Amino acid sequence: MPERRVVIVGGGLVGSLSACYFAKRGWSVDLYEKRPDIRLPEHSNLVEHRSINLAISERGFSALRRLDPELEARVKESVIPMHGRMIHSLDGKQTSQAYDVFGKHINSVGRSTLIKLLLDEASSYSQVTLHFGYEFINADFDSGRVMLQDANSKEECCVDADLIVGADGAHSRVRQRMMTKVRMNYSQTYIEHGYCEFSMPAQEGTFAMNPNHLHIWPRGSFMLIALPNLDHSFTCTLFMPWSQFDEIKSNDDVVSFFRKHFPDALQLIGEQRIRLEYAANPKGSLMYLKCAPYTYKHRAVILGDAAHAMVPFYGQGMNCGFEDIEVLDRIMLSQSDKAGDCTAALSDEQLQQALSEYSALRSVDTSAIVDLALQNYVEMRAKVVDFGYLARKYLEGMLHRLLPHRVIPLYTMVSFTSIPYAQVVQRWNQQSLWLHRSIRMATIAAVVSIGAFSARMMGCRQLPPLHELLHKLKRF
Amino acid sequence: MPERRVVIVGGGLVGSLSACYFAKRGWSVDLYEKRPDIRLPEHSNLVEHRSINLAISERGFSALRRLDPELEARVKESVIPMHGRMIHSLDGKQTSQAYDVFGKHINSVGRSTLIKLLLDEASSYSQVTLHFGYEFINADFDSGRVMLQDANSKEECCVDADLIVGADGAHSRVRQRMMTKVRMNYSQTYIEHGYCEFSMPAQEGTFAMNPNHLHIWPRGSFMLIALPNLDHSFTCTLFMPWSQFDEIKSNDDVVSFFRKHFPDALQLIGEQRIRLEYAANPKGSLMYLKCAPYTYKHRAVILGDAAHAMVPFYGQGMNCGFEDIEVLDRIMLSQSDKAGDCTAALSDEQLQQALSEYSALRSVDTSAIVDLALQNYVEMRAKVVDFGYLARKYLEGMLHRLLPHRVIPLYTMVSFTSIPYAQVVQRWNQQSLWLHRSIRMATIAAVVSIGAFSARMMGCRQLPPLHELLHKLKRF
Repeated sequence: MPERRVVIVGGGLVGSLSACYFAKRGWSVDLYEKRPDIRLPEHSNLVEHRSINLAISERGFSALRRLDPELEARVKESVIPMHGRMIHSLDGKQTSQAYDVFGKHINSVGRSTLIKLLLDEASSYSQVTLHFGYEFINADFDSGRVMLQDANSKEECCVDADLIVGADGAHSRVRQRMMTKVRMNYSQTYIEHGYCEFSMPAQEGTFAMNPNHLHIWPRGSFMLIALPNLDHSFTCTLFMPWSQFDEIKSNDDVVSFFRKHFPDALQLIGEQRIRLEYAANPKGSLMYLKCAPYTYKHRAVILGDAAHAMVPFYGQGMNCGFEDIEVLDRIMLSQSDKAGDCTAALSDEQLQQALSEYSALRSVDTSAIVDLALQNYVEMRAKVVDFGYLARKYLEGMLHRLLPHRVIPLYTMVSFTSIPYAQVVQRWNQQSLWLHRSIRMATIAAVVSIGAFSARMMGCRQLPPLHELLHKLKRF
Repeated sequence: MPERRVVIVGGGLVGSLSACYFAKRGWSVDLYEKRPDIRLPEHSNLVEHRSINLAISERGFSALRRLDPELEARVKESVIPMHGRMIHSLDGKQTSQAYDVFGKHINSVGRSTLIKLLLDEASSYSQVTLHFGYEFINADFDSGRVMLQDANSKEECCVDADLIVGADGAHSRVRQRMMTKVRMNYSQTYIEHGYCEFSMPAQEGTFAMNPNHLHIWPRGSFMLIALPNLDHSFTCTLFMPWSQFDEIKSNDDVVSFFRKHFPDALQLIGEQRIRLEYAANPKGSLMYLKCAPYTYKHRAVILGDAAHAMVPFYGQGMNCGFEDIEVLDRIMLSQSDKAGDCTAALSDEQLQQALSEYSALRSVDTSAIVDLALQNYVEMRAKVVDFGYLARKYLEGMLHRLLPHRVIPLYTMVSFTSIPYAQVVQRWNQQSLWLHRSIRMATIAAVVSIGAFSARMMGCRQLPPLHELLHKLKRF
């Protein structure tokens, strides 16, 4: 069998994990990353402030496990479990809301820690070559020739690939170039909110707050959140409409803002640090994007944020990107019955068939999670303190305990199962309908019972017929 | 006053007209076009098969008139009026449907004829310089430096601009570069249909069909249309789902296809020509795009297809692009009260204010016409032979004649007025509601009258009360 070569553009989380998968399936892998190798001590600070902390949950673990259970175990050693949300009210009161009635949890993990683990894993495959400091310029998607530029010397070079994988993030250049070849439907939307990060240092060598929670200060139109780090600090992120960022004109303004809305966080971060970091740290924008198809013939595929960037409010961006790789691997393997577990043996036709199936299947699921992530922002910054929301959450939790496979809360389906995202939404809609009906029926039954009981108590022998009662009730 | 310089990228219809407008308002204009000058005899065939024929109507003329009534007159000398649609049924019968009860018409015009007229007009301004064979590479939108590449020598050069205008079409590179600076919402969608052009030659020195119509062969999921050219030929365009194009595998297939669905057109075009042109002419895809904002600070603006490409079914693409320029000119002038009619005298702040106002206002209107153009495809290929559609069209035409300013058919508002597109949609929705109610009332009144009359005839003295009658009617 001639050696089949995949060129992966982007050495972030999705790029490095996909390098491992392709190597495991017999491909010769060349991965090109624009930045230097962050595993080298002199480049270790390159990931800072790159974006919001990461939360890894079932879908992410599942993809690691499928590749190598030991890798999953190594990652699990570097995470901090978060069992629930800790809601901080204005008066400093903290209320814990568990994520799951059976104690399942999500996990805070540092972006750079995880990338380093994955790059090490990729390096452990003999047929993987990692190239750092190379920028993707263009590709001839028909011939498979990829043009790259050395970031230092600015010299251009070409490599030939049987398959080109674009794992180069939301502003993917591979996708941009593919769009000139493929009739790609594409949309990107910025939300009216931006974010800014602050760090909350360890206090006397330990965490300043309960480390096993994702902390939220929900304030309606904006919020602060905090995730724990292994060094006992927290990374706090303020999400807020740009118009409100614009109102903060000085470093004093940002302190007054924190004093007014997050007094407890202000105390734990410190005035001086808030001033410094607000001035120094970039304000990031938040965007989501959808596109389709994800592939070009047997030649190219985009994965992760390059295909479906989402707002970070469901903690699913990376998990979904990892699941992309797992789904693609399953589909490619199912095409290669004869080839055993070597997808490098697929013919061009089989590969095209697999990629096209992947694109059709996956774009429906990713579209669902992109929408869910957007909706969860409202939940996090406002609904978590709403009575109706909490009542439903409680009721669903109870039903989930009774009928664990019939009634599954939305958050549980997204974070603790691998049910395809589009099915999650479908099940959730059915469940909601069923729940609403049940609540209405239960309410009516309760009212009727109480009415009948009271009537008996007051000495009525003859009760009015039920349909009359119901009719009267309806009029209220 | 220091000279203010605008760099226009793209020397198509919108680019060349905007060059004239900026020159008229006192700017120094440099226009860069990728292709050679199509006015030179050796390049005159470059525009062929570039896209569907053009139809110019009120909005387009209005923008020409505002610039120079003589230019409008010159363009009007090069057009062929189309007073209505000519519907070709399968048996060869032709039915004319007028566009307007007062005889207003749209006009067929050749793309290259119009571009040449506009380039000549632009050249007539001393402060306009046209540069052909230069490709836009990138721009530093903060400093206003524009990087270009000579298409022949491949040498790069830089020019400085106070304002950069992107009039470089649906795949605009100016827009792509702006997107790295601006939080731009963007969506592009391909429809499932493609197109292919054919030419129908003159017969014995004259038009093969009535030249004052836009000819349509509506066939449900696909259609053929034909627009007249000055040389007495017609340009025919077949619009069809890609899946149906795929079914045509040979030149014989295309002839059988025409024989089955467009026998009269087959005869007028000729078998041989259909074979040759189907094989030779490219199959074009159809896409629409929306984005916002259109501007970056006081430094850049995108116009025409670069900002809002649409499917060609309302004949509004170019008209909307020309109207862009007119609207921008009005807004810029209204900012420059003190400066007379010289918008080059605007300060950076005034210019930014004007651009930002333009973007906010215009993006709403262009979004409306992008949607209308998409809807009109269904109308053209299917509804034009539907009884309900024709009945409503007839009724509206009658009401428009009676109350010309109160009831205006949709097509008339779009093609024969300058009512902003978003208002067109709003008025149309109100009109539809009012019309539906009126028809219901009229029907009820008619039924009641007939009932009463019949009852009298049959000798009933006492009629049932009206509300009883209405109640009974409602139950049907």
